[in-house]
Amino acid sequence: MDRALVGIVVGSDSDLPAIAESVRTLEMLGIRYELTIASAHRSPDRVLEYARTARTRGLKVIIAAAGLAAHLPGFIAANTVLPVIGVPMGVGALNGVDALLSIVQMPPGIPVACVGISAARNAAMLAAAILATGDEVLAAKLETVRRAMAEEVAAKAKRLGKVEERDQ
Amino acid sequence: MDRALVGIVVGSDSDLPAIAESVRTLEMLGIRYELTIASAHRSPDRVLEYARTARTRGLKVIIAAAGLAAHLPGFIAANTVLPVIGVPMGVGALNGVDALLSIVQMPPGIPVACVGISAARNAAMLAAAILATGDEVLAAKLETVRRAMAEEVAAKAKRLGKVEERDQ
Amino acid sequence: MDRALVGIVVGSDSDLPAIAESVRTLEMLGIRYELTIASAHRSPDRVLEYARTARTRGLKVIIAAAGLAAHLPGFIAANTVLPVIGVPMGVGALNGVDALLSIVQMPPGIPVACVGISAARNAAMLAAAILATGDEVLAAKLETVRRAMAEEVAAKAKRLGKVEERDQ
Amino acid sequence: MDRALVGIVVGSDSDLPAIAESVRTLEMLGIRYELTIASAHRSPDRVLEYARTARTRGLKVIIAAAGLAAHLPGFIAANTVLPVIGVPMGVGALNGVDALLSIVQMPPGIPVACVGISAARNAAMLAAAILATGDEVLAAKLETVRRAMAEEVAAKAKRLGKVEERDQ
Amino acid sequence: MDRALVGIVVGSDSDLPAIAESVRTLEMLGIRYELTIASAHRSPDRVLEYARTARTRGLKVIIAAAGLAAHLPGFIAANTVLPVIGVPMGVGALNGVDALLSIVQMPPGIPVACVGISAARNAAMLAAAILATGDEVLAAKLETVRRAMAEEVAAKAKRLGKVEERDQ
Amino acid sequence: MDRALVGIVVGSDSDLPAIAESVRTLEMLGIRYELTIASAHRSPDRVLEYARTARTRGLKVIIAAAGLAAHLPGFIAANTVLPVIGVPMGVGALNGVDALLSIVQMPPGIPVACVGISAARNAAMLAAAILATGDEVLAAKLETVRRAMAEEVAAKAKRLGKVEERDQ
Amino acid sequence: MDRALVGIVVGSDSDLPAIAESVRTLEMLGIRYELTIASAHRSPDRVLEYARTARTRGLKVIIAAAGLAAHLPGFIAANTVLPVIGVPMGVGALNGVDALLSIVQMPPGIPVACVGISAARNAAMLAAAILATGDEVLAAKLETVRRAMAEEVAAKAKRLGKVEERDQ
Amino acid sequence: MDRALVGIVVGSDSDLPAIAESVRTLEMLGIRYELTIASAHRSPDRVLEYARTARTRGLKVIIAAAGLAAHLPGFIAANTVLPVIGVPMGVGALNGVDALLSIVQMPPGIPVACVGISAARNAAMLAAAILATGDEVLAAKLETVRRAMAEEVAAKAKRLGKVEERDQ
Repeated sequence: MDRALVGIVVGSDSDLPAIAESVRTLEMLGIRYELTIASAHRSPDRVLEYARTARTRGLKVIIAAAGLAAHLPGFIAANTVLPVIGVPMGVGALNGVDALLSIVQMPPGIPVACVGISAARNAAMLAAAILATGDEVLAAKLETVRRAMAEEVAAKAKRLGKVEERDQ
Repeated sequence: MDRALVGIVVGSDSDLPAIAESVRTLEMLGIRYELTIASAHRSPDRVLEYARTARTRGLKVIIAAAGLAAHLPGFIAANTVLPVIGVPMGVGALNGVDALLSIVQMPPGIPVACVGISAARNAAMLAAAILATGDEVLAAKLETVRRAMAEEVAAKAKRLGKVEERDQ
Repeated sequence: MDRALVGIVVGSDSDLPAIAESVRTLEMLGIRYELTIASAHRSPDRVLEYARTARTRGLKVIIAAAGLAAHLPGFIAANTVLPVIGVPMGVGALNGVDALLSIVQMPPGIPVACVGISAARNAAMLAAAILATGDEVLAAKLETVRRAMAEEVAAKAKRLGKVEERDQ
Repeated sequence: MDRALVGIVVGSDSDLPAIAESVRTLEMLGIRYELTIASAHRSPDRVLEYARTARTRGLKVIIAAAGLAAHLPGFIAANTVLPVIGVPMGVGALNGVDALLSIVQMPPGIPVACVGISAARNAAMLAAAILATGDEVLAAKLETVRRAMAEEVAAKAKRLGKVEERDQ
Repeated sequence: MDRALVGIVVGSDSDLPAIAESVRTLEMLGIRYELTIASAHRSPDRVLEYARTARTRGLKVIIAAAGLAAHLPGFIAANTVLPVIGVPMGVGALNGVDALLSIVQMPPGIPVACVGISAARNAAMLAAAILATGDEVLAAKLETVRRAMAEEVAAKAKRLGKVEERDQ
Repeated sequence: MDRALVGIVVGSDSDLPAIAESVRTLEMLGIRYELTIASAHRSPDRVLEYARTARTRGLKVIIAAAGLAAHLPGFIAANTVLPVIGVPMGVGALNGVDALLSIVQMPPGIPVACVGISAARNAAMLAAAILATGDEVLAAKLETVRRAMAEEVAAKAKRLGKVEERDQ
Repeated sequence: MDRALVGIVVGSDSDLPAIAESVRTLEMLGIRYELTIASAHRSPDRVLEYARTARTRGLKVIIAAAGLAAHLPGFIAANTVLPVIGVPMGVGALNGVDALLSIVQMPPGIPVACVGISAARNAAMLAAAILATGDEVLAAKLETVRRAMAEEVAAKAKRLGKVEERDQ
Repeated sequence: MDRALVGIVVGSDSDLPAIAESVRTLEMLGIRYELTIASAHRSPDRVLEYARTARTRGLKVIIAAAGLAAHLPGFIAANTVLPVIGVPMGVGALNGVDALLSIVQMPPGIPVACVGISAARNAAMLAAAILATGDEVLAAKLETVRRAMAEEVAAKAKRLGKVEERDQ
């Protein structure tokens, strides 16, 4: 029976569309994941239970996405030694600046690995990079993805006009 | 036996000097308080225990001060229905802007009453105003304090020179 | 005769839709309130009158919402010892950052309890928490609301798929 | 009997050193002024009395300096039709950004003429420019001050080396 | 022959709609004005000519509106002793924060009277307040406008429900 | 055979519309350019190759546009001694503030010439000004463009009403 | 022969004192590391060489610290699939806000795990958490460290006075 | 007779120490320069004269440094077609954020090449890169400087310990 390696937690079901890119990226990389909803403020017990059982349930990395005060990633990180990746959601009047600071400015001793505002794809890529430290096959897959990215850029540039050059 | 009505919690002993003004103000107003240290990230169980027993132990209001990601006030508020006053500490590279946003931008459903950056005195004044909604003697005391403030301003203005006026 | 316990004041009738969530929340909790318009700058006498008579008229808490320079909550707080909850409106070119700072950064001695930008629901929840310090029935109701929030999160998570788990 | 034309009001005696440059500039320009202390929050009646009698007492312009939430200039402007110049004090954790926004972002209908953070000299220069709209002698004096500024720059440049030029 | 007392200058014709509220307000107050376009960067000579002849042409106050780097108000102020009111336009990626700082943070000696972002109405109200320092009729008109504002607030509040009060 | 003098590089094909104004401006000025896509992060080798061959391929100036972390201009500047003009793209949750700081705050030794957020036209104008330091014909053309700008402003002002003046 | 698992790279020797806490934390946890200097802008080849050989040299995680435009972590991440932890240095006029945004706002595809401004200790703790995903002994050690943190908080609280309580 | 190629202008003699690094860098590179003081606001005629004669006097590039509203670089750029490099001075309450935005956010048509806050050395390096577009000897010198930078980094890393590696 294959257990999930990456746990994705969002603070509210309204965050599900924004986190979809994490899901797609993990699926593209063939990484087993689970996805749930747990609010640090409205359901603290649920978050505690999730965080404290995460490692024994087989998870290796947790991705937590939240907006506004965005305590969810830090709250999870305080209750597990697994690496926690925080995704500040670009919502509300401050468009994610509040969530960014709430996630990244953790106090000494309890880190969160923060990615960019609403950067759901990068959260999954970072989770993959972490898993790849112990998985040569996944590391090779990531290198393939990198090469594909570079080739895609080159292809687009070529379509633009073999280094477009104009004179008059 | 007189129980504390106001609980003051700081995330770190390094915050104790900054919160001293809260203590002095509560003492000046004759309000019973207790003061302790509990970190949302380094000692989450301690915070949970504190928050969840606060109301049955007789507390009416909690003042929580924290810097950086400053999850403490929100974490306490998530675990008690008592009003929680958050004091963003003006520390670190961002001088409290991070703490301010982490405290004030709580998600719908779980409010924190945020005061100004490092505004320890106002945290205590707000706690007093809350207690005074059910304590006429304290309300009268607060009105006396207000009048004293106005008189102090007038006295300083008078010393400045009975509305200082210069001509040449 | 039942008098209002919470007074809601907005600086302009254009703020009424934004504050509607406060009204709905107080009604849901069965808390008597009154709602009026008074501008700190365009009708200062009206604000003074409102603030100075608030306590004798039976109010226990005031919610004041304003945008831009947003002096209304502080101006009311300067003229009553009742706890004043300030709601910075997310309007104008700065989307509420100006209102947030104008409300939260009060000088020593006169606090305002600031909630998040446009956080009308949390203003009402905080007013309720303050009233509940002297009202066991309301406190119990708030605890019920909290449990309902947690259950709603759990239900949504369940619908998502009993901790959705994918593998390939 | 010569009455003051410019009223300078500070919210706290701690602002007096910062406003000294306003006083010196008005004295240098021979403009009669008065200086007092009145806090919008700790002594609102005093501010009201000051603002509402300002015009009949002969004042033409008011300079109001305040830090943090900095409601003083707006509160005065709400209670007089005289032009009010606001000086945001560069104090506190935000170094005057809060005061700047609280002063400059006034709602439609009640303007404040905001100058730079801690710009006490410019507040006085602006008061002089306003008075000079009805005083040809003062206008001529301001033009002389302008020429002197230009000459001072030229003299400093000359001392630097008749347009310093280096070669090798 | 009646000459304009207030000169309104915008940096670009794209600013004309935003400044229309200044025009309407001056017209409502019966204040003679002129309106033109002059860019500090694209037509510096035009701005210089405008600023340097402003006083002899009879202007008493200049309103200058600009976005982005927004040097126009300061450039005019550097070339006239008339009071210059700067209106930061809320345009571009920073929505007027750049214009606000460029206008308000003038160096010592050359002030600009800054109003809020896109606050065209307040610019005209401030111009009126400045003119009213030498015009009793205008001052009385401004006091009438103020009373009308207060009455409008009261009327709106009344329509809301004679201080709306709900209980259940 | 005429070689390109200005190289334009964008980090992503999604930046092409935003950089179109650079292209149009260079074409209007008759400056030969080339345009390509190269990502500092997804195709670092491509950027290195581009930067390191730029001078020997005849380029005189490089315009590099990027959003978010926006390392592209700095990465190119680190690998050529040609002047590099950076254009922060006004995209993402921070609307270009991140790109602006990432481009302008280069460490000592490796400068980037930063223009405004999304200021594609100014990037081209700056490239032209740099080329004009060694090209009198281009310099004369730039002066003609400047005169045309001033005349356009004057013409628009004239259409507005020969200095529009209203009285009543 | 034991190879380093964590590579620490700073952009300048002036960053060495600030990163010392990373070194101390890794040593405390018994994690082998290497420390070097490589500037993304002044020595790009050195960074490339470092990043591209990192995985084959046995490194599992890289910590990169830089201030100002702070391209170093992103530049390394673009050239290795290892997880890269970025530490924004709190230096310069913006005190690390520039570095924070330059590090955290990476484009889609190439993530950096950002920690707080100058948060050298948390960078090491995060590196340890990543290594612990494949090292049960280290995971157990991290749990011990967590318990020690909680006990230290409790001990400090106890010294403060067994929950200090005052009455009068 | 050798004429200056780079003109350095500061808005105030208080900016001279901050700009000294520009002077030293130009001298190190053997580039002839001139240095003077001219304030956009206190001595606008002086700035106009300087800007309008710059090209005929033989200057190729102008470096202009200013703090606060920092109109100097833009004002010069509006009056010459030479490339103008703006250096925002990190002074005042906002530590250069105001100057940065005032310099970089120029309107379409008149660019300024902005470098980092107080980045006097980079201003000179950028001036050199511009001059080097028409001066092969200088270009070669800049490449030598770059190599020296890379070697200095390598040397420092070597002193640190031939890639310092610790184990336990």
